[in-house]
Amino acid sequence: MLIVQKFGGTSVGDLERIQIVASRVSESKKAGNDVIVVVSAMSGETNKLVQYAEHFSSNPSRADMDMLLSSGERVTASLLSIALNEMGFEAVAMTGRKAGILTNTQHTKARIEDINPTAMKKEIDAGRIIVIAGFQGVNENGDVTTLGRGGSDLSAVAIAGALKADLCEIYTDVSGIYTTDPRIEPKAKKLDKISYDEMLELSSLGAKVLQNRSVEMAKKLNVNLVTRTSFSNEEGTLITKEENIMEAPLVSGIALDRNQARISLVGVKDRPGIASDIFNKLAQNDINIDMIIQTKAYDGSTSIDFTVPVNDIKDAKDVVDSFIKTGEIKGDSYNEDICKVSVVGVGMKSHTGVAALAFSTMADNNININMISTSEIKVSMIIDEKYAELAVRGLHGAYELDK
Amino acid sequence: MLIVQKFGGTSVGDLERIQIVASRVSESKKAGNDVIVVVSAMSGETNKLVQYAEHFSSNPSRADMDMLLSSGERVTASLLSIALNEMGFEAVAMTGRKAGILTNTQHTKARIEDINPTAMKKEIDAGRIIVIAGFQGVNENGDVTTLGRGGSDLSAVAIAGALKADLCEIYTDVSGIYTTDPRIEPKAKKLDKISYDEMLELSSLGAKVLQNRSVEMAKKLNVNLVTRTSFSNEEGTLITKEENIMEAPLVSGIALDRNQARISLVGVKDRPGIASDIFNKLAQNDINIDMIIQTKAYDGSTSIDFTVPVNDIKDAKDVVDSFIKTGEIKGDSYNEDICKVSVVGVGMKSHTGVAALAFSTMADNNININMISTSEIKVSMIIDEKYAELAVRGLHGAYELDK
Repeated sequence: MLIVQKFGGTSVGDLERIQIVASRVSESKKAGNDVIVVVSAMSGETNKLVQYAEHFSSNPSRADMDMLLSSGERVTASLLSIALNEMGFEAVAMTGRKAGILTNTQHTKARIEDINPTAMKKEIDAGRIIVIAGFQGVNENGDVTTLGRGGSDLSAVAIAGALKADLCEIYTDVSGIYTTDPRIEPKAKKLDKISYDEMLELSSLGAKVLQNRSVEMAKKLNVNLVTRTSFSNEEGTLITKEENIMEAPLVSGIALDRNQARISLVGVKDRPGIASDIFNKLAQNDINIDMIIQTKAYDGSTSIDFTVPVNDIKDAKDVVDSFIKTGEIKGDSYNEDICKVSVVGVGMKSHTGVAALAFSTMADNNININMISTSEIKVSMIIDEKYAELAVRGLHGAYELDK
Repeated sequence: MLIVQKFGGTSVGDLERIQIVASRVSESKKAGNDVIVVVSAMSGETNKLVQYAEHFSSNPSRADMDMLLSSGERVTASLLSIALNEMGFEAVAMTGRKAGILTNTQHTKARIEDINPTAMKKEIDAGRIIVIAGFQGVNENGDVTTLGRGGSDLSAVAIAGALKADLCEIYTDVSGIYTTDPRIEPKAKKLDKISYDEMLELSSLGAKVLQNRSVEMAKKLNVNLVTRTSFSNEEGTLITKEENIMEAPLVSGIALDRNQARISLVGVKDRPGIASDIFNKLAQNDINIDMIIQTKAYDGSTSIDFTVPVNDIKDAKDVVDSFIKTGEIKGDSYNEDICKVSVVGVGMKSHTGVAALAFSTMADNNININMISTSEIKVSMIIDEKYAELAVRGLHGAYELDK
């Protein structure tokens, strides 16, 4: 098998941890696999460099930042290669450039555009372990770029895709994806397998493990992704395509998103295109709208309710105010004390009654549902935030996820 | 003017020092110059990385070490560029690769083979300050290399040569080259100007400031080199070609080298080629011989005396022992308690009596001269180490270097 293993900052947090990572990599190699390792900077290093930069400027050039920030991963990659060689394995360290990771020119948040696997293939064919500095690539001008948050995961997934690796293992300090947040429901169980789409819908459960960007790339490149911990030998969670999951459960997990706010507009002028005008203007301001409900009251006036991430409230209010000024909206109200609970599962596609069970569970717990949205594999409900834990535990039990 | 300014590890030792360097660079720019800056890693950083590597292996791969060690200079270069931009100057950071520093493939002690100045010229033409990570280049395989000890100085000199810069300023914590070591002779004076050849002969005086490798490259590329301190505005010492020094003094300085040992061989077999055999074998073992004296005693037996760096004594003894075994050398003795004092000056070329004054000064101070060697611009004497300071002060006064 060809395996790509990615180790995050806490997994390579100090010299002892790097030695442990070397042992783990060597186990995979000894088991007969070809191994490519992608590493992050030692935890704290990137923050230190950011602080250094902030000492000089609140607005440093992005190209300078990329040259600065890309150094941390190079250190870890070199050290891990040195450790592996000392253990008797042939290993070679590579920068993102050497590994052939070609990006666009968007410094500090570059997108991977192509992978030139020539150098990697040569080393793999020679039987060597490759240790690659994650988070970085090179643009068409020959300048180093970095990939933004979760960049090392992207490096690993892109490399796994380009080399058609059998597996891409993402090692963190979390052992996998759970049916729900174990801090809320201690009965939460680790999932063995989950589909890309479910993972994307459950992103709040995996937020600290995997960014959606990486899951989306894995889906696109058909990369079998495993998230597992580097702190034990515990098996992780395989994220793969739906066809690879033989017996998909009805529901895979319950996600909770506290980062939602509800905006209610009343007395919205009854003219064609008014909703489109409002939401276009919100979109132009990079405000992500999640759910939308439009209702007509008995008196003929229109109300529009929608949800936005809490951080976007201020920007959204500016947009709303511009319509209030022109008289096209009469009043507005904002509520941050809400949350979104979602029931997610590919099994829903072929079963009925899944949504009904969610609603009745809310009713049984005396929780009022403010808004509802559904997709093929998800039922999401907006409820008052104070009921968040109650709702998660109720749904977790109702769908028998603790069994 | 086009000025290359190189700042060593102590000059960029912390964020405050980097800010001071930024001010100094900006002064040169504001004075109307084009400025290229070459920086070392923050002091302590490279040692820290070496220690990290040693944690894993006593014999790490040199390619891995280069990827590891080249990261420190990148951090400093990025930070200095960020600081300059914040001050309102247009600056751009470059790696050794981007600056076009092409080396051979000798990892950890690569030689600069060529400079491709295209990228640098473009930025200079655009009026930008360039900040380059010193100590590093790229080899024909596209791998990062480092240049070994004093590597950042070499980067600076090579760049100054390639761009025909008017001046290459090497900033350290020492204010320049003195007529002799001020710790021995407090009356020592800083030299305004000195020729390349004198500097090479005086290397013990400049050892902490400039390595011979950089001076040799400056001579070859005809680069006007200035060593000065980044801790004050004091003028430094210009190292330039002899023709640029209008009124060369008879003697420029007195150098002291305590790192010498004398090896005496007696009863050396009287056969043709014996000396050549001995010194060839020493050379094969990378032992640097400085002075050699061969004498024939009245009894017809040959003695050979020579000096080596103290660190090479053990290796030299192994070579000598191999000749003692075959009976071609009867006896050997080793003396580390010697030193070499040298009187250096291009003015000697056209004056007589310079050596005679050195010898009579020794005599006046009752110092016995063990060995003598002379060149066009130098008189060196091996004396007992206990007389080192006395000899230096005596010569310094005799040649009126304190005037």
